[in-house]
Amino acid sequence: MATGTLQSPLIFLCFFLILLQFNPFFCEQFSISFSQPADCGPGGYFDISSLSCAKCGANQISGKSGLSCVCQTGFKVLTSNGRSVTCQKCPDSKPGVSQDGYECIQCPSAVGEDGKCQCPEGKILVERNVSGSLLQEAVCEACIGTEPDFSAPDAKGNRCVRCQDSFINTTQSCVCGSPNIPAGGMCFPPEKLPGTVVSTVSFAQLGLSVPSAWFYSFLYSSAAACLLFTNLTACQALGNMCVLNMHSTSSTGNDACGLYNTIYRATAAQGNSQNIPYWRTNLPWLYYGDQPGLASRVLQSEPLPVPFSFKGANKNTNIELLAAVYTVQGEFLRWENVRGGILQLCPDTVTRQQAAYTFGTAYKQNCVLSVSDLLSGQSEPLFFDIFLVQQKTAGDRRLLAVPVLNLNLQFNGQFVNQASNLNNWYLTQRLMLIDTLSGREKSLSSTPRVIRVASNLKIRFQLVPNTEKGEVYPPLMSVSYSDILITDPATQTVAVSFSVEYEMDQNEARVKTDIALGVLGGVAVVFSLLKTASWKRRISSPLIDVQTILKFLLIYAGDLASVFFVITVGTGLYWVIFYKAQQFVSVLLPLPVQEERFVTYVGCAFALKAVHFLHKLFEQLSVDVFFIDWERPRGKSTKSVEVTGEGKTSAAPVSIWRTYFVANEWNEIQTIRKISPTFQIMAVLFFLEVVGFSSLALRDNSSELQRSAEAYTPAYSRILRYGIASTMWLCIGFIQLMFFSVFHERFVEDKIRQFVDLCSISNISVLLFSHQCYGYYIHGRSVHGHADTNMEEMNSNLKREAENLCGQRGLLPNSDIQTFEISITSRLRAQYDRILEPLSRRHGPSRLVDASANPFEQSTKAYHTMNRFLGSVIDHAHREMDYIVKDKLLFERLIGMEFIEPMDKSIFYNDDSYSFSDVLFYGNESTLLVFDTLFFCVVDIGSQSFVLASVLTYLQQMIFRVIRNVLGRRNLVTKTLVDRRFLF
Amino acid sequence: MATGTLQSPLIFLCFFLILLQFNPFFCEQFSISFSQPADCGPGGYFDISSLSCAKCGANQISGKSGLSCVCQTGFKVLTSNGRSVTCQKCPDSKPGVSQDGYECIQCPSAVGEDGKCQCPEGKILVERNVSGSLLQEAVCEACIGTEPDFSAPDAKGNRCVRCQDSFINTTQSCVCGSPNIPAGGMCFPPEKLPGTVVSTVSFAQLGLSVPSAWFYSFLYSSAAACLLFTNLTACQALGNMCVLNMHSTSSTGNDACGLYNTIYRATAAQGNSQNIPYWRTNLPWLYYGDQPGLASRVLQSEPLPVPFSFKGANKNTNIELLAAVYTVQGEFLRWENVRGGILQLCPDTVTRQQAAYTFGTAYKQNCVLSVSDLLSGQSEPLFFDIFLVQQKTAGDRRLLAVPVLNLNLQFNGQFVNQASNLNNWYLTQRLMLIDTLSGREKSLSSTPRVIRVASNLKIRFQLVPNTEKGEVYPPLMSVSYSDILITDPATQTVAVSFSVEYEMDQNEARVKTDIALGVLGGVAVVFSLLKTASWKRRISSPLIDVQTILKFLLIYAGDLASVFFVITVGTGLYWVIFYKAQQFVSVLLPLPVQEERFVTYVGCAFALKAVHFLHKLFEQLSVDVFFIDWERPRGKSTKSVEVTGEGKTSAAPVSIWRTYFVANEWNEIQTIRKISPTFQIMAVLFFLEVVGFSSLALRDNSSELQRSAEAYTPAYSRILRYGIASTMWLCIGFIQLMFFSVFHERFVEDKIRQFVDLCSISNISVLLFSHQCYGYYIHGRSVHGHADTNMEEMNSNLKREAENLCGQRGLLPNSDIQTFEISITSRLRAQYDRILEPLSRRHGPSRLVDASANPFEQSTKAYHTMNRFLGSVIDHAHREMDYIVKDKLLFERLIGMEFIEPMDKSIFYNDDSYSFSDVLFYGNESTLLVFDTLFFCVVDIGSQSFVLASVLTYLQQMIFRVIRNVLGRRNLVTKTLVDRRFLF
Repeated sequence: MATGTLQSPLIFLCFFLILLQFNPFFCEQFSISFSQPADCGPGGYFDISSLSCAKCGANQISGKSGLSCVCQTGFKVLTSNGRSVTCQKCPDSKPGVSQDGYECIQCPSAVGEDGKCQCPEGKILVERNVSGSLLQEAVCEACIGTEPDFSAPDAKGNRCVRCQDSFINTTQSCVCGSPNIPAGGMCFPPEKLPGTVVSTVSFAQLGLSVPSAWFYSFLYSSAAACLLFTNLTACQALGNMCVLNMHSTSSTGNDACGLYNTIYRATAAQGNSQNIPYWRTNLPWLYYGDQPGLASRVLQSEPLPVPFSFKGANKNTNIELLAAVYTVQGEFLRWENVRGGILQLCPDTVTRQQAAYTFGTAYKQNCVLSVSDLLSGQSEPLFFDIFLVQQKTAGDRRLLAVPVLNLNLQFNGQFVNQASNLNNWYLTQRLMLIDTLSGREKSLSSTPRVIRVASNLKIRFQLVPNTEKGEVYPPLMSVSYSDILITDPATQTVAVSFSVEYEMDQNEARVKTDIALGVLGGVAVVFSLLKTASWKRRISSPLIDVQTILKFLLIYAGDLASVFFVITVGTGLYWVIFYKAQQFVSVLLPLPVQEERFVTYVGCAFALKAVHFLHKLFEQLSVDVFFIDWERPRGKSTKSVEVTGEGKTSAAPVSIWRTYFVANEWNEIQTIRKISPTFQIMAVLFFLEVVGFSSLALRDNSSELQRSAEAYTPAYSRILRYGIASTMWLCIGFIQLMFFSVFHERFVEDKIRQFVDLCSISNISVLLFSHQCYGYYIHGRSVHGHADTNMEEMNSNLKREAENLCGQRGLLPNSDIQTFEISITSRLRAQYDRILEPLSRRHGPSRLVDASANPFEQSTKAYHTMNRFLGSVIDHAHREMDYIVKDKLLFERLIGMEFIEPMDKSIFYNDDSYSFSDVLFYGNESTLLVFDTLFFCVVDIGSQSFVLASVLTYLQQMIFRVIRNVLGRRNLVTKTLVDRRFLF
Repeated sequence: MATGTLQSPLIFLCFFLILLQFNPFFCEQFSISFSQPADCGPGGYFDISSLSCAKCGANQISGKSGLSCVCQTGFKVLTSNGRSVTCQKCPDSKPGVSQDGYECIQCPSAVGEDGKCQCPEGKILVERNVSGSLLQEAVCEACIGTEPDFSAPDAKGNRCVRCQDSFINTTQSCVCGSPNIPAGGMCFPPEKLPGTVVSTVSFAQLGLSVPSAWFYSFLYSSAAACLLFTNLTACQALGNMCVLNMHSTSSTGNDACGLYNTIYRATAAQGNSQNIPYWRTNLPWLYYGDQPGLASRVLQSEPLPVPFSFKGANKNTNIELLAAVYTVQGEFLRWENVRGGILQLCPDTVTRQQAAYTFGTAYKQNCVLSVSDLLSGQSEPLFFDIFLVQQKTAGDRRLLAVPVLNLNLQFNGQFVNQASNLNNWYLTQRLMLIDTLSGREKSLSSTPRVIRVASNLKIRFQLVPNTEKGEVYPPLMSVSYSDILITDPATQTVAVSFSVEYEMDQNEARVKTDIALGVLGGVAVVFSLLKTASWKRRISSPLIDVQTILKFLLIYAGDLASVFFVITVGTGLYWVIFYKAQQFVSVLLPLPVQEERFVTYVGCAFALKAVHFLHKLFEQLSVDVFFIDWERPRGKSTKSVEVTGEGKTSAAPVSIWRTYFVANEWNEIQTIRKISPTFQIMAVLFFLEVVGFSSLALRDNSSELQRSAEAYTPAYSRILRYGIASTMWLCIGFIQLMFFSVFHERFVEDKIRQFVDLCSISNISVLLFSHQCYGYYIHGRSVHGHADTNMEEMNSNLKREAENLCGQRGLLPNSDIQTFEISITSRLRAQYDRILEPLSRRHGPSRLVDASANPFEQSTKAYHTMNRFLGSVIDHAHREMDYIVKDKLLFERLIGMEFIEPMDKSIFYNDDSYSFSDVLFYGNESTLLVFDTLFFCVVDIGSQSFVLASVLTYLQQMIFRVIRNVLGRRNLVTKTLVDRRFLF
């Protein structure tokens, strides 16, 4: 061969070029240049072995496929040996080439363009006699079309065969003469049907009516064959054309659906199939009639006979759909199980697609399909009559027709099915997914001008109201089509979606929620009024002024927030439990649109809780604190002049360090909480994201925590997310509270008790005013009289106390109670304010007035005065400001209001539950926990990310802790006169 | 109709049953019972209109499809009107029914089972004459098979047509007489090829040889037609059979591949296609020859001419594959772009599947396919010759053959391609995905006994070493097949996967890492030796004993951990930056197997760091602390007997509260850190999971942070995850450090400085011994002489100091330096230990010895002695234990070792950078940060979950903080004699 001799110079060249590093491309051993059959031209063919073009031999041209050569017109095949063909020109005496191409023959009439003999229509071409002998001259033979032979040329035109039945039936011959009408290869008598039919298809979205080759060819013949010959396939084909026309009926009555209806009416006498009133015998079932209200009767009158249940022995979550599949020609193909991928146009794994048919799994699949794929994939549409299988007992399978709501259906030009009113709907049967056929204008093999795709297919199940046995109404399949004008298939796309939705009537739930909201809201008003009254008493102000109303609103915000919180958590938990745990289906999740109301409630709860929280924060930041130092100078002898000199002051130097210590500790316990907030976040995040509790918020009935990556993941329900997240917060919060209060505070460390202990040991009492005339008192007078002492004494004091060798710590003799809620007279408060006046003036605008006075001295003076004054009050030294100690009534505790107004004497209520922590974060754990919970949930509802919610909740906690700390310290500095530097 | 009359009673019954609520099933309006064609029996048909069974008319049986009725055998169709057919028995004179079923006819010989006439083989049945007239008696006509007519019956057996070329060529007639061999519808002369061929297919995985109907029918004929007639399609079909046989060659030489090779050798003279030495003209290209080492030459000798680049104007990441598709019969179907879904058997969206062909995206798709789907989906396998398109300039498309490594290939019974040695491989061409054909035993339409599926298809690209222009070697496609014995197709499944891998030679990187490890490891040894020496000096022990070696190992663990950490972070970051940011491809990620070494390094780093951390923790927990109280009783007059009596002690009651305060604060600063560790976790989590930096760790070249849910998500690279996570930790840690040291500690709060201040204000010095003879000293002697005083004096003192009215706080006069590193003489240490002896004995086993002594008294005594002793040492009162103050040399600082040994005098080194925080968490931030980073990364590498890593890191931090706090406090209580109750 020629290539063999070329090889060695080529290799040489190759090496040369490698040396030059010139063009490595040329030398690549295993690369070929790309060519395809279309590139080889008319005189060449594509060699499928070497994948390259080759030249045809003499007198040859490339064949139709381009993969081989055939003889030119007028040449016959001389020899054919697999690959190579030799051709020979036919002699002038036999100018025609036989059909098989191997012989020359004389033609009876003309020679066709392909060089072969041609016969006029109705005649067949005969080249060989019966036993295979070649004739010298081909013959054109006419077929005998009359009785009894009834023959006509077959499709190839080389044999006479029996002609089509309709010709014989109509004309008793094989010729369809006037007045009979030939159509679609059949022959019809001129009766009953309109003479002209509308063979255009209306693509309403594009405002386009396309003359359809398919309708042109087969609409009339299908209708006629259906009506006249009761041809079942023709009836189905006619029905399919009506479906292709979107079941739309116009007033003219001679389009596909019009013809269907004409035949439907004309065949009324034949009765119905399967006892279904809208299913005429021999016709496909397309419509559900046009009575008003029929749709609601069909969809909502009777539940399915077999209920659905999620669990247990009768578990039944399988939605078994069966489709009778028809071709566009009207042939019945098969019964097909509607599994994944039959109705779903988007590709996906079988497992994921199959998830659509599990009852209770909200399924949604979206994708964008390329128009060119659609065009190449399906040449003819398939038609589905969809039934739901109901198997009560084994073997007894009944099929329930699934009605279709075609949103593109036009009734007298109106899109009636797009209306929201159920009663105006026209339900239909039979579904088509992709139609690339009806939009072909010129011929059935041309590219369509318009294609139509079922871009939105939705199966909707509705639960029977108040069912407890999983009864659902028959499903409705709603479909809307997109019309796509083909301009550039390679770049055009169409978005399609398939979804399965489950719906129940949420009105009852809504009414119940509203009732709960109303009742609890009312109770909240009462509570808020009580709290406001209590507040009025505590600030000892009897007037109802603007401030009171404002306060009431603030308090009410808090209570209402709690109401909203309780209701939302309750609702969320209700859905989690009742939806996920139900055996027989009795509830279905609200749809995303139906969740809006719930989200609003959560928003309200959060906003009100935030107001409440900020209000509490502000209250805490303006608490009045004073540390009463009971320590007195050790004996009078210490008053003597000291060695260090500068003995200006006459007071003995009672060390301030104990006060510093107590103030420092008070500063530190301001922001401690009953639980660890960061651990809370981490634990919640761990359980939601790592353990996988977030899976419980998916819109399906599975309660598995870990889902496989291959399984279908439905969308999240916001209600379930809220329910899971808030429950998780509250549970973990509760567990933490239990842990800290039962174990940690008892056996490890209790900061609050430690603080009270410290007060006692350091001989310092703490007086707190959360309101004008209300507050707390921690009695810290040392039982040893002195605390400002050295290590030996401290140790021996502690030891003595541990061995019960000294008195009890309580305010009253022989009592242990150190902590009190106090309700003081306004006289006492007035005195308190008077002593502090010079200090508060320091911050006021009148600074200039008193500029000469040393603020240090002033504050020290005030401190000492206050210390003495409060000490004497506690010691009952002031008769006009005396107090009594009593227990709080249970009812007083419950409603948080004191019944007795402190008129003459202040009242100290025994309080062994450390109520003073109410002015700290510690005592407001519930508020903080609920606020954190709501914050977390609100972020999550907005972002659908537990991680983001965790991070932001952490930041929120941190920011508020810093604010509380910094401002609380500033307040402490102002109120207790302790230097800022000792508070860290 | 009969149904019409039945309807009204039925409705009545219906109502009746509704009233009884008996069986709602019966009354359902739109349900039908299920029936299918197979249910209708031989005497019925399936009415496609009503979807129910109906009875056939008289003399009829159901047709083949079951959808209509046909006349019984021996009956002809009398009338046919669409739906209904009437049949008539044929008279005895004409017992046969014509082929079209409409006529009765006399048969020339036998009447077949179907009631129609039959002719012996080689003859055709003639029922009508040429012009369509029915004959009274059908005729069996013999075709004339000799020249020049060469006719034989056609497939239907009712026409004589020209017989197949091979008959004419071989025998010059239409009869394939002996010795010629008829095979596969052709006729071959008895030459050249072995008489018998192996028509079994070997399924080696099952150890099964299945006689294949396909091979039986077509193997010999394909080989013969290929060799004798150069029939290209036959050659391809032969090649395909070789592919179906896994390209396996046995020694017998008469199986498919053996025949291929025989023909290959026999046609050597014809030369090669496309200048490719292994591609014989007219034959398909199946093998790459069998020279040893050919595979490595093919795969690794020359890069692709068009380089890949990730970014920029020449961006080229598109892997364009083109496949020549052949049918199993050997016909060329088309050139096909290998887009998503062509080679990928798992269904998925087009976008995701297309991601496989983006260079640099590690693609892997797994799924399990149902065998029944495979059986129903593909009846005949397709064959692909795959080429990589290389388009240097527009229009110039060259195709590079992609070699296939068939892992199932057997060469003389050996699975040579499963060897790891490249040089033993036999590369092949042509790929087949699903073969359900060759396993059919009896006929081509039977169910296959075994099917074969390409269960593992992998395309591997390899980067040219040291390229910087994105040069890659030609890809290799390796495929392994699974053989599945069909037992129960409905339940059988097969796992398939498709992957695209990118590989580069990691040896260089490994060598570089090893060198770095060696060098840095050596440096670490030196450092560790230095540190050990320093430690030896600080514990003032000159001996090298076991403890020293142990200590060296502990120190070395820490240094080596740092080395590993630096190397792993460097490597991780290297891959992140170089892989994601490269324009021309110059590096490719290590494969998961190649990552193992890296993971080991990370594990080493973590384990060593954990040892280091625990060591540090232990050291911190055993630090010696003493608080020296400088406060002296105010004047001697206070020594007089006090009022409270019990004046046992002669010492004046210097308040211990300042010491408590300082101890309490010291306790609190034990676990504070330079950064906020929880914020660190939250910030890292936020950036990784919410902002989406974790996307950077995906094995593709995209650097987008947020990926769409529809896009393909490749697997994570552990190296990249580590790189991203550790960098994120270090960056955020660094930013936090900056923030805290530059802003927070300067303008908001600096706990360490506050502690030093507190010491000064409270007149208390702190002495710390981290080692036997080495430690820290915080000089806290008040410049005012006294601190144990009341608020006025404290305030005025503070004010005076703020106004610079008093001396400076430093230890030396006129110096500000309060903090020192101290290196003490062993004499001083011995004295220190002697004073503490009674206390340490308290915890020892000899408790019984001294049971009488009051432990309180003992400790107080020790405390006072120590206080006095240390005070006098600081005051230079002990001549033999004097000290000098000096600056540390820069070099001493750098290597962390003192040059001068404190022989006579202790040495106090000025230290204004608060080195004493080295015994706190605060001073070991780098260790803690690195430990946290490694902990986080190790958890993440193990679990691939940043959330879990965050949660566990938080727990780890919490646990160690609690341990440090609790044990630290216990140590503090033991060493400083401060009661536990004051440390909270």
